[in-house]
Amino acid sequence: MKTLARFYHAGCPVCVAAEQQLANAIDPARFDIEIVHLGQTKARIAEAEAAGVQSVPALVIDGQAFHINFGAAIADLK
Amino acid sequence: MKTLARFYHAGCPVCVAAEQQLANAIDPARFDIEIVHLGQTKARIAEAEAAGVQSVPALVIDGQAFHINFGAAIADLK
Repeated sequence: MKTLARFYHAGCPVCVAAEQQLANAIDPARFDIEIVHLGQTKARIAEAEAAGVQSVPALVIDGQAFHINFGAAIADLK
Repeated sequence: MKTLARFYHAGCPVCVAAEQQLANAIDPARFDIEIVHLGQTKARIAEAEAAGVQSVPALVIDGQAFHINFGAAIADLK
């Protein structure tokens, strides 16, 4: 069974770079990768916050949040 | 030809979590992953800084630095 990896972003330049280089580097044989644009799907901000995401871009792997550089604070997306 | 991905860390708890979950998630079919412990190999701190690394843990993919959460500042490792 594959592990779920969620990449949360907001379309910012920092987010795009992280998606292209880092999220796309994740092994598709072991992970199901879901890309979530929080600017376009604000209904999922609560889900990201519950996973510990405080800023974007962030990658949540197996329930653990990894903030990647800094694009925007979650609070600024609401 | 595989792309080089360097994971810089300093053995801190935040670093270990990032290595186990994120660095290990990188696709080995497309990337050569090198793990560099800057606390033990201080000679490579300059190389990390040249790649734009300001704190650890960080992943440098194809020359681009991605800081993952925050464990320690590079300045504190010198």
